[in-house]
Amino acid sequence: MPSLERFWAVVPAGGAGTRLWPLSRSSSPKFLHDLTGSGRSLLQGTVDRLAPLVDDRIVVVTGALHLDAVRRQLAGLPDEAVVAEPSPRDSMAAIGLAAALLERRDPDAVMGSFAADHVIGDAEAFRATVRVAEQVARDDWLVTLGIAPTHPATGFGYIELGAELAGHPGALAVDAFVEKPSVDVAEQYVSSGRYRWNAGMFVVRPRVLLDLLGTWHADFAARLREIAADPGRLEELWPSLPRIALDHAVAEPAADAGRVAVVPASFGWDDIGDFDSLASSLAADDGRLVVLGDEGLVRGSDSSGLVVAASGRRVHVIGLDDVVVVDTGDVLLVTTRSRAQDVKHAVARLRDEGRDDLA
Amino acid sequence: MPSLERFWAVVPAGGAGTRLWPLSRSSSPKFLHDLTGSGRSLLQGTVDRLAPLVDDRIVVVTGALHLDAVRRQLAGLPDEAVVAEPSPRDSMAAIGLAAALLERRDPDAVMGSFAADHVIGDAEAFRATVRVAEQVARDDWLVTLGIAPTHPATGFGYIELGAELAGHPGALAVDAFVEKPSVDVAEQYVSSGRYRWNAGMFVVRPRVLLDLLGTWHADFAARLREIAADPGRLEELWPSLPRIALDHAVAEPAADAGRVAVVPASFGWDDIGDFDSLASSLAADDGRLVVLGDEGLVRGSDSSGLVVAASGRRVHVIGLDDVVVVDTGDVLLVTTRSRAQDVKHAVARLRDEGRDDLA
Repeated sequence: MPSLERFWAVVPAGGAGTRLWPLSRSSSPKFLHDLTGSGRSLLQGTVDRLAPLVDDRIVVVTGALHLDAVRRQLAGLPDEAVVAEPSPRDSMAAIGLAAALLERRDPDAVMGSFAADHVIGDAEAFRATVRVAEQVARDDWLVTLGIAPTHPATGFGYIELGAELAGHPGALAVDAFVEKPSVDVAEQYVSSGRYRWNAGMFVVRPRVLLDLLGTWHADFAARLREIAADPGRLEELWPSLPRIALDHAVAEPAADAGRVAVVPASFGWDDIGDFDSLASSLAADDGRLVVLGDEGLVRGSDSSGLVVAASGRRVHVIGLDDVVVVDTGDVLLVTTRSRAQDVKHAVARLRDEGRDDLA
Repeated sequence: MPSLERFWAVVPAGGAGTRLWPLSRSSSPKFLHDLTGSGRSLLQGTVDRLAPLVDDRIVVVTGALHLDAVRRQLAGLPDEAVVAEPSPRDSMAAIGLAAALLERRDPDAVMGSFAADHVIGDAEAFRATVRVAEQVARDDWLVTLGIAPTHPATGFGYIELGAELAGHPGALAVDAFVEKPSVDVAEQYVSSGRYRWNAGMFVVRPRVLLDLLGTWHADFAARLREIAADPGRLEELWPSLPRIALDHAVAEPAADAGRVAVVPASFGWDDIGDFDSLASSLAADDGRLVVLGDEGLVRGSDSSGLVVAASGRRVHVIGLDDVVVVDTGDVLLVTTRSRAQDVKHAVARLRDEGRDDLA
């Protein structure tokens, strides 16, 4: 199938992945790592997945600190495909900057924004869903992809489905975006069939996105367009941009205003937020000890869970269930899948100790 | 107090300490390691403990492979204090060789044999017990030290106490040496008050030891004396010596023959046979996460057990009880105190894989 004409992919590559420390570090965040055992980093996997839709119409937005690493990993892309944010300013600024640049480059473009650090099971199904979303976006909707929940997750936000969209079979209006729920509420959401996981994927005309932003944050939208008009002013204007997520800045109010559509999808998705989630994605739920890295280095006996073999050393695990062992060159983490969320406290403690070099 | 005239210490430094892998290796066995956090290896600690009794009247018997390491650790001793066995031949050959050498050197000597890889709590009490044993040994007894059991251990052999020894207050005859018992039997032993742990410590005249050996293994004793008479024949004669423990070759039959005495002792003793025992000796029984090595490298959170920090890397442990983490430069072991015995299987598996370099 040919690529989607005048369709651009925007890939925000940010976020520290603190709960995946010490594999993910502020100096080498999650999206630069191969968390699937495929031999490709999450960033590379994201670009690989999008390539059949966009050829080389892609804009990766990353932190200045990671510009070189991102360009190295995406050596097939032209340098101008990677844009550096001078400092972290959350997702609205990153995606909004790409939108403003694309708006000038091709006023008739549609863009799709897909985070660099998510894992998707069925790439074909993903692309088919994006093709539907692109058609809807051409009618000036802000379109999101709604992932079919596989369990009552409390770590994701949800999308409440509304009425079917006239003229766009397979698409629905979005009644509301809702925050991460409690277990009880998540169970109601899933059993109702009326909610989808919010994976933060948006397909939209750059102009529509910036105009919607301008409705609630007029200065923000204006500054992004000023930067696009004169990229030499990026360093000067960037620090004044608000730190706010696209969901809060645009998606939530736009849903209330009846401007958001959703294309339901079921291609298998995970944001691999912590080692428990990583273990699941690598099939450790089958009571096995799974290995990310060189399996030849790891020996398990009566054990299940996850070993990240990232130091080149031998790792032997005996008699531990649902264990998490992350073996890197300078730091070793040993914990359990049920304590995976607490890894962020270890990182906070390191920062308290002034050991930002390890965090 | 002055040292004991004509009393010699014999320190057999052998045994791989397989259950302490990967800290202890065949290339760097247990006795060469600091397992107390004192800054001294078990071998050095053993020699330190004996020095007030013997000055420099000491013979360390070790494998040819470890000769250099032992001499380096015991740099204060003359080179001839360290004797190399050409190949491992179990404790009777090692201790018997020292006895044969000492018999020629000082026919009136008494020797005390103490393994290089045990930990003793109260060194003063230990030495006081040895002084009593030495007096008994001058009357041609084979004297052992009987450790007061602190719990019904199933990992040690026991000594059955007999009648008090005439003329030697504090010493008793040994009725029998018994093998490692079941839990039930061990509980009976401990509650009876008539049994002591056999720590494999013997005080005896070299002549008496060799004559006793000659009673049941005439050739063995004769060959040891041939080697002592002409050390140039060590390499030639050594391979013909039986592989047998001193307990089986001499102590058990000698006890049956009424030739063994015991001095009860309560100085705190452990052979640190595995990581569970090591954890206990370092006070991990108090529900703490104890560290052997640089404590500054280890951070524990809601965790108890043992971390051996031997690689210079940071180690973070979150939410694991009674865990054992052994972090060395080329191998990482993660297990639990209750599975400490199974470490030997990992080593066996390495040998099966032809990775003797790591075993």
